[in-house]
Amino acid sequence: MPAPRGFVEVRCVLARRDVGLNKNKDMAAGIETFNLKEYMAEKARLVNEALDMAVPLRYPHKIHESMRYTLLAGGKRVRPILALASCELVGGDESVAVPVACATEMIHAMSLIHDDLPCMDNDDLRRGQPTNHRAFGEDTAILAGDALLSLAFEHVAARTTGVPAERVLWAVSELGSTVGSQGLVAGQIVDIASEGKEVDLEVLEYIHTHKTARLLEAAAVCGAIVGGGGDTEVERLRSYARCVGLLFQVVDDILDVTKTSEELGKTAGKDQASSKTTYPKLLGLDKAREFAQTLMRKAEDELAGFDRVRAAPLYHLAHYIALRQT
Amino acid sequence: MPAPRGFVEVRCVLARRDVGLNKNKDMAAGIETFNLKEYMAEKARLVNEALDMAVPLRYPHKIHESMRYTLLAGGKRVRPILALASCELVGGDESVAVPVACATEMIHAMSLIHDDLPCMDNDDLRRGQPTNHRAFGEDTAILAGDALLSLAFEHVAARTTGVPAERVLWAVSELGSTVGSQGLVAGQIVDIASEGKEVDLEVLEYIHTHKTARLLEAAAVCGAIVGGGGDTEVERLRSYARCVGLLFQVVDDILDVTKTSEELGKTAGKDQASSKTTYPKLLGLDKAREFAQTLMRKAEDELAGFDRVRAAPLYHLAHYIALRQT
Repeated sequence: MPAPRGFVEVRCVLARRDVGLNKNKDMAAGIETFNLKEYMAEKARLVNEALDMAVPLRYPHKIHESMRYTLLAGGKRVRPILALASCELVGGDESVAVPVACATEMIHAMSLIHDDLPCMDNDDLRRGQPTNHRAFGEDTAILAGDALLSLAFEHVAARTTGVPAERVLWAVSELGSTVGSQGLVAGQIVDIASEGKEVDLEVLEYIHTHKTARLLEAAAVCGAIVGGGGDTEVERLRSYARCVGLLFQVVDDILDVTKTSEELGKTAGKDQASSKTTYPKLLGLDKAREFAQTLMRKAEDELAGFDRVRAAPLYHLAHYIALRQT
Repeated sequence: MPAPRGFVEVRCVLARRDVGLNKNKDMAAGIETFNLKEYMAEKARLVNEALDMAVPLRYPHKIHESMRYTLLAGGKRVRPILALASCELVGGDESVAVPVACATEMIHAMSLIHDDLPCMDNDDLRRGQPTNHRAFGEDTAILAGDALLSLAFEHVAARTTGVPAERVLWAVSELGSTVGSQGLVAGQIVDIASEGKEVDLEVLEYIHTHKTARLLEAAAVCGAIVGGGGDTEVERLRSYARCVGLLFQVVDDILDVTKTSEELGKTAGKDQASSKTTYPKLLGLDKAREFAQTLMRKAEDELAGFDRVRAAPLYHLAHYIALRQT
């Protein structure tokens, strides 16, 4: 079988045979004709245009500059792409999912801004640029986060068209619980409380499923909801996205111990140098790799019941995350 | 005409004849049989119970303790009461407005927590108690605000029953724009930018209509929306609540210069001692009183087309705010 096309290179955290690329030949066949890199670039363009229009630069200028600074700073737009792909997977037109897609990115931007603050993670740089509070001041950064968060809900409620109102409300409710005290906020508060402590596997998983996986879940779920998906489809996509979110963290932990700083483009071995608990530290490297394989297979299994051509983006996205090298 | 019952005492900022209590005899007659104090206490009990249930104390405990600390700290619950009264005024059952009523109080609590932070107003005390960040730390306080804000939207979307979904979405959208970069956040950012500067009447009104009046507006508007009000009714209540919100600020400014600290129960003359711009400072005391009268009359006019018995709570509430002595 030829290597899947896309931007995944040859040297792999997980050997390809381990992550199940051969498991479902029909699905793999669909994937071979699919170019993830092009797909993601095209969807990111669509999302970036929609985000640009959602936050025009108007009075009071400073708050809008601050909101746009983080929201339009680039990134792969994985969450919005999950929303658009899930919408299409259940048979919806991607245009109906653009508002929920933008909302997940507004929420993501808010969480980056607030998590970077001096009283939280105290980061001065993000992707080589000053963090929002370094560029605009702490007061403006906090308010920009608040404004992005409320805009996410307003945007979904006011801009989603061609979808029954009950479904839009369902998406609003899903997004609300994603952020709140049982979602992103819960993950961040447990992460802060665990700082400098050894935590067990249960707590580690709690942090990652809440801080990272939960918003990916909401993106896939909301895309499927506005796309007209049934309950089973929505829950399959939730499970798929949760696995992918956790997989992202496990692979991140593995790369930190297996790669050089040069290969990663950032400081390697940071987790080991700090007292941060990671999967390789708790499980050992081999078991951590096995866990990644299990998550990868589970994500793949959740896609098995869907149309194989429509499932190609999500199938390939999971592989990209599993096989990424940086 | 006897003095209106309620908890408004005799010594008034505005003489009663000035604020139009005699203007509409029918309405005034309805008011004489209405006890605002009892009404507000009864509604506050209902709201407090609903808020207590909306944020149960569960894992992670610290974030829920922090959310509950500010949310359940008491207060008159003016915003939720506006929502309930507006719902009933347009013929709705008050039970359908309880979720939007709670949402306005969650948003209010969020704005208090974030505005009190060291990088904003840097307040250590609120109503004689340590502010949220003094009690729980800045990180938890910021996250508690974020969680309360997202819960507000989730609560409305998931808990409103017996209302067409389109109307619930309309309320979600209204609440979103209330908080965002054209709402509360806009008011706070312009207020911060104006600190230590003399501002003109236009900027002063911008700050107060956004920081204070906007959420009162949303409360009345959302109550009317879920209560089944027509567009004209909704907009009349918006205008009523905007006038009442601005009136609150104008009266606050007047009390600061006309009362002693003993009478106010807080430091009088604070505004004069600081460089804060106020209505008496910009307009002079007489013109500021005239402006308060104008707002009071406009608020009253907006209620004139409604059923007079149902309008009594809102009519009386406006008078209570105009005539309050502390």
